[in-house]
Amino acid sequence: MSDTKIPYKIYLEESEMPKQWYNVRADMKKKPAPLLNPATNKPMTAEELSHVFCDELVKQELNETDRYIDIPEEIQEFYKMYRPSPLVRAYCLEKKLDTPAKIYYKFEGNNTSGSHKLNSAIAQAYYAKQQGLKGVTTETGAGQWGTALSMACSYFDLDCKVYMVKCSYEQKPFRREVMRTYGANVTPSPSVTTEVGRKILSEFPDTNGSLGCAISEAVEAATSQEGYRYVLGSVLSQVLLHQSVIGMESKIAMDKYDITPDIIIGCAGGGSNLGGLISPFMGEKLRGEKDYKFIAVEPASCPSLTRGVYAYDFCDTGKVCPLQKMYTLGSGFMPSANHAGGLRYHGMSSVLSELYDEGLMEAISVEQTAVFEAAQQFARIEGILPAPESSHAIKAAIDEAMKCKETGEEKTILFGLTGTGYFDMYAYGAYNDGRMSDYIPTDEELQKSIDTLPKID
Amino acid sequence: MSDTKIPYKIYLEESEMPKQWYNVRADMKKKPAPLLNPATNKPMTAEELSHVFCDELVKQELNETDRYIDIPEEIQEFYKMYRPSPLVRAYCLEKKLDTPAKIYYKFEGNNTSGSHKLNSAIAQAYYAKQQGLKGVTTETGAGQWGTALSMACSYFDLDCKVYMVKCSYEQKPFRREVMRTYGANVTPSPSVTTEVGRKILSEFPDTNGSLGCAISEAVEAATSQEGYRYVLGSVLSQVLLHQSVIGMESKIAMDKYDITPDIIIGCAGGGSNLGGLISPFMGEKLRGEKDYKFIAVEPASCPSLTRGVYAYDFCDTGKVCPLQKMYTLGSGFMPSANHAGGLRYHGMSSVLSELYDEGLMEAISVEQTAVFEAAQQFARIEGILPAPESSHAIKAAIDEAMKCKETGEEKTILFGLTGTGYFDMYAYGAYNDGRMSDYIPTDEELQKSIDTLPKID
Repeated sequence: MSDTKIPYKIYLEESEMPKQWYNVRADMKKKPAPLLNPATNKPMTAEELSHVFCDELVKQELNETDRYIDIPEEIQEFYKMYRPSPLVRAYCLEKKLDTPAKIYYKFEGNNTSGSHKLNSAIAQAYYAKQQGLKGVTTETGAGQWGTALSMACSYFDLDCKVYMVKCSYEQKPFRREVMRTYGANVTPSPSVTTEVGRKILSEFPDTNGSLGCAISEAVEAATSQEGYRYVLGSVLSQVLLHQSVIGMESKIAMDKYDITPDIIIGCAGGGSNLGGLISPFMGEKLRGEKDYKFIAVEPASCPSLTRGVYAYDFCDTGKVCPLQKMYTLGSGFMPSANHAGGLRYHGMSSVLSELYDEGLMEAISVEQTAVFEAAQQFARIEGILPAPESSHAIKAAIDEAMKCKETGEEKTILFGLTGTGYFDMYAYGAYNDGRMSDYIPTDEELQKSIDTLPKID
Repeated sequence: MSDTKIPYKIYLEESEMPKQWYNVRADMKKKPAPLLNPATNKPMTAEELSHVFCDELVKQELNETDRYIDIPEEIQEFYKMYRPSPLVRAYCLEKKLDTPAKIYYKFEGNNTSGSHKLNSAIAQAYYAKQQGLKGVTTETGAGQWGTALSMACSYFDLDCKVYMVKCSYEQKPFRREVMRTYGANVTPSPSVTTEVGRKILSEFPDTNGSLGCAISEAVEAATSQEGYRYVLGSVLSQVLLHQSVIGMESKIAMDKYDITPDIIIGCAGGGSNLGGLISPFMGEKLRGEKDYKFIAVEPASCPSLTRGVYAYDFCDTGKVCPLQKMYTLGSGFMPSANHAGGLRYHGMSSVLSELYDEGLMEAISVEQTAVFEAAQQFARIEGILPAPESSHAIKAAIDEAMKCKETGEEKTILFGLTGTGYFDMYAYGAYNDGRMSDYIPTDEELQKSIDTLPKID
C-alpha cells in the first residue's frame, strides 16, 4: 500500500481486535528460569504461589507452552471501552526532524489511568473477582499502575489497597485523588501499617521509598488478610502476557497497511510495556520468520539491563517474594530521589532478561535531562504531553531517526508511547525551571547493592 | 442497521472527516444582534474589530450568510493529529442505570489540552500566523483554553500570553506547568501588569478573579502591543463556527449508523462546546427538516440562561470589549469561590442566546455536589474521569435516561463530554473528603449585578 495512504492514526475495528493474548515463552527455546522458594531454593509450586496470587494468574505465570491464551469475554468488553489504542504515524515529528525514517508509535495513554497498565489491571481484577476474593493489594510507583488497578477494582466492585512509593505520594497528591475517586485506599510506603514497612523505616527513616519496598508491604498486606491476594503491575510473566495486547494490536494494524518495522523501541522499568509491545514480533524472530531490532531504554539512574547482573534475586526489598532470575541491581538498590517518574525497579522481567541475555534484544540507558528535552520536543510537535517513562522511548526513537538522517536510510521505527504526563507536572516544572539534574550511580554504589544478592547454587 | 452492530466507539475515517465548518447563523431567520461599539452604541465595523481580532477572524465573526466555510488545509492536518474524536456508546452506563434509553457521548478529551478547546485554538492561531502577527493574548478560567492555545501557538511558533483567573491559577499549578511546557507566559488575573487589572485590584483586593476580568486584561495586553491580537475561547460566533466540527463529526458518525438523537445535551459556560455540538442538528431544525430537543446545562452558581436577562452587556468586567446582546448576569457578576472548574462566565454566546430566546433550545441549571456525584459515577462506570464542566452534561443525561426508565421510552440521548478532569483533582479531592458545597446566588445578588447592565436604546 502506498505510503501516502497511511492515516495519522490507525484504529482497528472492534472486530479486528485481538481475542487472545500471545505468550512469548511458548516460542522461547530456552525458557526463563523458574521462580524459587526463598526458604528452600526449589522452584515455587502452583500451590505455594496461590497464597500470594490468584489461582488463574498462577496458572498463567507458570504456563510456558500455550502460545495463545483466550481473553475472557468480560475483559474483551472492558478493552472495548478504551481500546483499540491508536497506532500513530508521527508525520509532524518526521517533518521536524527532517528524517527519511518513518516513525510510528502505539499510544496507550488515552484512558484515565493514563497508561498501558490498565491492560493487565483489568485482567488481574477479573480473575480475583472470579475467585470470589474480597480485594487485592498492590504497590505503585509513578502511580499509573495504582490508578489502573483502582479503575479495574471499581469496575468489578473489589476492595483495592495501594502502597504508593513515598516520594511519588508526596510529589503526586492528585494521583492519590484519582485513586480515591475510584474508591481505592492509598498508603505511602514505607508505612507503619506492615511489619516490613516498620522494619525498613527503622533502618532508613529518611527513605524516599522504592518499588521493591512497596511490593513487600503489599504482599504482607495480602497474605495477612482473609480473601485478599497480591497483584503486580510489571515484571511477572503474566503481566507481559496481558500486555501482549499492545503488540498484537500494533502488529495487526501494521500488517493491515503492509508496514514492517525495522526497529522496535520501548522504555523498560520492570518490562511490562516493552515485553507487551515486542512479544508478537519477538515471536516471529524466535520462530525464524522475520528479524527485528529491539531496543530496551532504561534510565541511567536505574540501569538494570545495562549495568546489572543476570542472577537470582529477591523481587522486593523486604525479601518476602519468590526469588527470580533476572537482570538486577540488587533488591536493596534505591534510585536517587531526583529521578522522576517510574522505571525505578531494581530488576527486570525474567522473560526480557533471558531474551536480552541471549542477544535477541539490545538495551541502552539515557539520562533524565535529555529525556525531558525529548519529551518537551515531542509534546510541542506531536501534541501529546508524554509521561517521563514513555519519554525514554521517545528519546531513543529520535536518536535512531537522526541516525537515519545521517545515513539516508528509510528505516521504519515503532515505539511504545506508554502514557501521558498529566500527573508528572512537578517533574516538568523542575525541567521548565532548569532545576532538573542527572544522576548516574557509581560503580561502587552499584557493586554495594549487587553484593546483597542471595547466593544460589 | 441493527443496534447490536454499533461499536463502543465510532471513529470516522480520515476521509470522512469534515472539510468545512458549519455556520448556523446562515440558517437562522432572526440573526443574533450585532456587536456594538461601547462608545457610540453603533454596530462594530470590521475595521474597528480588527484592532482587537485577527482580520480573517473578524470576517468569520461578521459572516451570517455562508452556511459552510472551508477549513484550511493546515488546520485539517492538525485536526488529524487528535481528531476524529470518538462518538462513544455508553453501553456500561446504560446497563448500570438499567434504562431503555440509548446514550451516546462525543468525547473531546483525548488530547493534551484535555478538551474541545483545541478545535478553535488551532484555527485562531493559524489565522494569526497567516496575518504575520508576533503573538496572541488570551484569558483562561479552568485552564483548558489556555492550554489549548499554548499548544496551538507552539505549533505555529507564535508568542502566547495567558491571563489565568486567579483562583484557577492557585488551585491548578500543574495546568500552568503544561502551558509553560508549551512555551506560554502565564499571569494570574487580576494582575498589576495591566491598567484594568490594577483598577480591579484596587477596588476588590481580595477577588478570586473572573473570566470577565481576565478578558479585560488580555484585551488590553493585545491592543497595547504591536503585532498582537486578542483571541477568545468561547462566546464569540467564530468560536462556535470552529467548534461545529464536534457536531459535524457527531452527525456524520450517527448518520453512518442510522442513529437519530432525540435529545442533545451540552454544558454551557460561554457556549463554545454546546454551540459546536448542536449546530448542524440545529440547522436541520431551523430548516424544518428534523426536530430535536436541545438542553443547555449550566451551573446553579452561574445561571446566565436560566436566571439572567436577554440584553446588551459588556463581555468583560473592565468594559473594554464590544457590547453584545446575550443572556447575562451582568459583567460585574463573580461566581462564588467554591464553584469548581469553568462555566464561570457571566454571559452566553449571542447565537445560543437568540436560539434560546426563540424557544429553540431549553436550559436547566444543576448544583455542584450533584454534578460531582454524577462525575464519580460516570468515571467508575465508563472509565473516563470527566472534567467538572463536562459533568454538568453527564448529570443531565443521566437524569434524562432515568426519566426514560420511568416511562419506558427508548430515547436516544447524545451529550458532549467536553474533556477530562485530570487537572481538577483539587475539586475532586474536596468532593472525596465531603468538603464540597453548593451555592446558589440569591435574587438580590443577581439583581444587584444585573443592575449594572449598560442602558442601550
